[in-house]
Amino acid sequence: VFAPPINRLITELSRFPGIGQRTAQRLAFHLLRVSDEEALALADAIREVKETVGECEVCFNLATESLCRICQDDRRDGHVLCVVEEPSDVIPIERTNEFNGRYHVLGGALSPIDGVDPEDLHLAELIERASADGVREVVVATNATTTGEATALYIADVLRERAPSVSVTRLASGLPVGSDLEYADEITLGRAVRARREL
Amino acid sequence: VFAPPINRLITELSRFPGIGQRTAQRLAFHLLRVSDEEALALADAIREVKETVGECEVCFNLATESLCRICQDDRRDGHVLCVVEEPSDVIPIERTNEFNGRYHVLGGALSPIDGVDPEDLHLAELIERASADGVREVVVATNATTTGEATALYIADVLRERAPSVSVTRLASGLPVGSDLEYADEITLGRAVRARREL
Repeated sequence: VFAPPINRLITELSRFPGIGQRTAQRLAFHLLRVSDEEALALADAIREVKETVGECEVCFNLATESLCRICQDDRRDGHVLCVVEEPSDVIPIERTNEFNGRYHVLGGALSPIDGVDPEDLHLAELIERASADGVREVVVATNATTTGEATALYIADVLRERAPSVSVTRLASGLPVGSDLEYADEITLGRAVRARREL
Repeated sequence: VFAPPINRLITELSRFPGIGQRTAQRLAFHLLRVSDEEALALADAIREVKETVGECEVCFNLATESLCRICQDDRRDGHVLCVVEEPSDVIPIERTNEFNGRYHVLGGALSPIDGVDPEDLHLAELIERASADGVREVVVATNATTTGEATALYIADVLRERAPSVSVTRLASGLPVGSDLEYADEITLGRAVRARREL
């Protein structure tokens, strides 16, 4: 039904995760409706981000220089490393204001089925950083999914061998704040019981 | 928290209707994650669509030439015009395969509160087309919203005066196919009762 340039735009928009054909069409028609200026501002922003944003040389977080903002900030505690799967995982942890250490971005989680093996992640660099002088703790903040958990166990194993003086910790599992017990799944609730704390 | 180019991209993405700050962030991180090639394909598609797609001179549908595909197609029946608010409204009607006439895109609906008056829409052009030789029917397919209904009534009024030989029709209101009576609102159900048909 559409002219080729519109089809092409819809196809490109539907590559976004969670954006189906229908939504992509709606977004495309939005871009057709707005001024050239507004639509091209998006095109330019995409181009600019791909030209200027790369990976931090140390932690693989997003960076516009060779080091990311956190690695450049000498008020951050270099004794504690927080390991996350993706750069986007840094933001929610920063928002908590509970962590003042540095990060290490793996670039994914181990998943043999999807062909993601240890050498596909920044694990060698993690081992090297963790074995360096002064690192006391590695907080593993991979997702609470099957692949995230498997990756956490792998990291704990490998660091126990390669950096035995470092303590490896994991984010706590438990009830989300504000949630009803009634709706908690049994695995989460089971973990919350085992990890109960004195009041 | 983000570098300026990432903030800019998030801002531009959040201009899409229905895309909040959170989703815009997710889309931005997707673009950061994919290859330069994939991200720039989207930027280029936006640019191309704004450069090549304009309005049909006759019906104001989207067009890559001076006339849209439908206005160029001489198998379409020029005796019947279907009036829609936006170019995106043409597609669902085309998909029904129930309409073989031509279109007229208004470019919105009348809404005095939002400052959309008759002269802001392609209404003068509609009157001119409807008064032309051979047009027998104008099907008003504006949305079933307050502004869409008001626009339909306005069109019926003005055409009664300016093109009295043309019959002006409106899409039927009624129960959506597959829907439960129980969940129908009373206005829809009331119209479905009034417009009941013999089986």
